[in-house]
Amino acid sequence: MHIVHVSIHLKKDYIDAFLAATSENAINSLKHEPGVVRFDFLQETEDPTHFVLVEIYRTPEDSIRHKETDHYKKWRVLAEPMMQELRSRKIYKSIIPPDLAY
Amino acid sequence: MHIVHVSIHLKKDYIDAFLAATSENAINSLKHEPGVVRFDFLQETEDPTHFVLVEIYRTPEDSIRHKETDHYKKWRVLAEPMMQELRSRKIYKSIIPPDLAY
Repeated sequence: MHIVHVSIHLKKDYIDAFLAATSENAINSLKHEPGVVRFDFLQETEDPTHFVLVEIYRTPEDSIRHKETDHYKKWRVLAEPMMQELRSRKIYKSIIPPDLAY
Repeated sequence: MHIVHVSIHLKKDYIDAFLAATSENAINSLKHEPGVVRFDFLQETEDPTHFVLVEIYRTPEDSIRHKETDHYKKWRVLAEPMMQELRSRKIYKSIIPPDLAY
């Protein structure tokens, strides 16, 4: 699995708009991309302007294809101006569960 | 869901021992704790000394019960001396998937 964690800090007052735009992107990614295994959208309890996307792709190529979809491009245009700073991104491999367990 | 991300930076030369100890803790948590929904153990591809535990509990109380288990206590004694610095911990709620979808 190719696992991407994206950390996003929002400007104040954009939470509702960001929740709507990002939920739509997550749902479309799960529905239309066979390479997407999970697309969890999380909000930090102590800081509700901080969000994490936990994206699990079957292969690195699936994460590239995700960025070519219309729903991703729409999300980026809507969501980027809501961010306090550039989002950060880290890539992981899964130890537990092993890839075969997915 | 009560979601905990634990970020851990290891001292050099402890990777193999940490992989063994943490895999055992993850497997035992999944096997013996009904309040544990997921316990993903991830290694960063760019920095193999950086790990994240993605722990998904049904309730906050389940995350407290986890720390009372023998497998957690054993892990903590083994793993803490391998860490470069104190591990950090953030708590999230799930927007997507909604709790009912778990």
